[in-house]
Order: sequence, then C-alpha cells, then structure tokens
Amino acid sequence: MTYPAGPRTVPTRIRERVGYDRATVHAVLDEALVCHAGFVVDGRPVVLPQLHARIDDRLYLHGSTGARALRRAIDGGLDVCVTVTLVDGLVLARSAFHHSINYRSVVALGTATVVTDPEEKARALSALVDGVVPGRSAGSRAPDRRELAATTVLVLPLEEVSVKVRTGPPNDDAEDLDLPYWAGVLPLRGVAGEPEPGPDLAAGIAVPEHVRAYRP
Amino acid sequence: MTYPAGPRTVPTRIRERVGYDRATVHAVLDEALVCHAGFVVDGRPVVLPQLHARIDDRLYLHGSTGARALRRAIDGGLDVCVTVTLVDGLVLARSAFHHSINYRSVVALGTATVVTDPEEKARALSALVDGVVPGRSAGSRAPDRRELAATTVLVLPLEEVSVKVRTGPPNDDAEDLDLPYWAGVLPLRGVAGEPEPGPDLAAGIAVPEHVRAYRP
Repeated sequence: MTYPAGPRTVPTRIRERVGYDRATVHAVLDEALVCHAGFVVDGRPVVLPQLHARIDDRLYLHGSTGARALRRAIDGGLDVCVTVTLVDGLVLARSAFHHSINYRSVVALGTATVVTDPEEKARALSALVDGVVPGRSAGSRAPDRRELAATTVLVLPLEEVSVKVRTGPPNDDAEDLDLPYWAGVLPLRGVAGEPEPGPDLAAGIAVPEHVRAYRP
Repeated sequence: MTYPAGPRTVPTRIRERVGYDRATVHAVLDEALVCHAGFVVDGRPVVLPQLHARIDDRLYLHGSTGARALRRAIDGGLDVCVTVTLVDGLVLARSAFHHSINYRSVVALGTATVVTDPEEKARALSALVDGVVPGRSAGSRAPDRRELAATTVLVLPLEEVSVKVRTGPPNDDAEDLDLPYWAGVLPLRGVAGEPEPGPDLAAGIAVPEHVRAYRP
C-alpha cells in the first residue's frame, strides 16, 4: 500500500529517491526517536524537536510545542510538517561535489489536533513511552488522571506523506574514478551505553530486561 | 559571550533549560551532522533535513531545499528556522509522565540568503565536506568552476539563536520514589562501522586516517 502522491509531496528534484510506500514510511517513523515538527507562528517558521509515536496511520506528538502553538491546535488544528531523519552512513566520494549521506527521511504534512478522547490519549501516551524504550510503559507507573489532564498530545493523521531514501556507494563522475582518493561509505549507527541508575534508586532494583535489551 | 535573548528565543515554558551561550551553541551545531530547516511555502510549514556547517557566526546550509525555496532565497532571503538536536540519553522515570530524553538542541532563526561571493562559497563547501568527516575536503577533489556554479549554498547569520539542554537523572515525584520500577538514564551515542570501499575503488587505495579516525 502506498500513500497518494500529492502536490506537496512530489519533489521538484531528484525524484528517484522519493517514495510513498506505507510500510517504509512506518518503519522510518518507528525507528526514529525524535522528529522535528515545523509550524508557522506569525507568518514565520518554527521547528522544534518532539517525541513521537505512531499507531496505525496516526502520528502522535508530545513535546514542547510551546503554549502558543498548542493554543492554536486547540482552536481547530495546527498546520504542521513533521520530519524524521535517520542517518545511515557517510558517503565519501572522490570529489567534494558528490559527498552525501545515506539516510531515510519521512515528511508528513497536515493538520495536527489535540487528542481529546481519554482512551486514545492513554493509548498514545503508552505508545510514546514505548517509543522511548519498547516495553517501558509496562515497566513504569501509568499516568493518573491529573497527569493525563496536564499532558497535551497532538495527533497528525498520516495522509500527505513521503519518504526519501539514499543508499549505496558514492556516485563519482567517470573521469574521477582514477583519482587517488579513497571512496566509499562509512556506516553509522546508534548504540546504548551502560544504564546509569538514578541517584535515588532504591537498593535491590536491577536493570530490567527491556532496558538491558534496548538497541537504538 | 551569549547571543541576545529575543522575543522569539525566550521560551514560554521550562525556562531553566534554555540558554544563549555562544560556545554551547557552536558546540551543538558543530557536533550535529544534520539539521532540520523549516520555512514557509504558500503559508504552510515545510521542514527538510540539510547538511550544515558553521564558520564563526555564519551557518551554511546545503541540501534539497527544493527549487521553490531556493528561488525565494535568491529573491532576497528565505525566512528559516534551523533546528539541530543531539540525543544524549533516554530518561527512564518511575512514572510514565516523567519520561524524557537528555538532549541538546539549537534553534536558529533568521533570513537565509544565497552565498554569492566565490571565495566564501568555496570556504563554505570545504566546511560542509569537513562537517561530514573532518579532514575530508583535503582528502577529495575540490569542486571545479562548473560544480561551484551548480551548487547553491545558503547562509544564515547566527543572531537569533538559543540552545536547550536537558541533562541528568529522571525527576520523579517524591511519592513515586518507593515504587518498584528501575529509574535512571540509558546513554546513547553514535558509532561508525567498518568503512565500505566503493565497488569501483581502484586496488591499493587504503582507508585514509581521516576516515579511520572518524568518531560521530
């Protein structure tokens, strides 16, 4: 299944790297810990990092959108562009010109609204916590009524979405292939270090499996 | 030295984590490989990942801003918000509510213009390549006149800038401290894998030191 290509999601250049495959879009969104949400305030752009979580075709956002943007979303919807980028490697060409990165990036456009249904909000918050570490929502205290009320979650339906992917080795010009420079890809990935227990952690509470097993 | 706090860089909430220290801003910008640049197209937000490089108080951008945005920048400046986020760790609290991430994020606002001075453009492109891998611009072929002409580099003067930082353990509520859940921080970092030589690399060209020594 693919998302429809729309006037804002068909790129004006390098078309070959853009797609609309639903499974690829979902995989990129799910792998990324942080997204960057852009919105317009007084006619000018603002981009802020946010935590996000996806359930089916709904993308939930939670973060410091700031009071102004949230008020706007409460008043009928916030026009947003949510972008997620995973960097997979450095593309080192023989020519400076052809340097690039291997990456997967999703751009989701639309109107975000505040989640008001209490059950959907609870599900979204569980997904957001599990988006930080899978299994974590079951390994922590669920939000109470006061905390639920104090939390604003936005939802963006995934409708106007595209994914852009670059993979593979550098694309040097034919006349550069004999230059004496190394060319190739340096793969990058994230790793987790040793868990650091909080200074007020009670004695005898071991690092749980969902933390021990975490891979970024 | 600090950047001035302005009406758009003083946050409306959680003030304690926001700063304007120039050295901190520069360190975050320099450590990040990718930024997210937001601009307004037909009144609506667009956020795209870009490569960036900083020289003194000028931030250079290079990426697929797309023809529309670039045309606008050529015509007198593009109102942008450039945001860079480094994730340092997962903050796992006893309560779902207090889950967070440790991060450093810079937001730079202003008007980006196209770099037209050939010397500044060449310096910016070297910095952009060295931003991918330090030392790489000396380890690859410099752009020729045709490539320089085919490349558009934008510059955003760093004037309206802020940096937001979260560090340290989770901040659980006092009444949650005795809950039987593990709490602490799981540090995250990026690592480079084994360099993958391009399939057309000539025999006898070893992985150079600047690639071998690279640390994300």
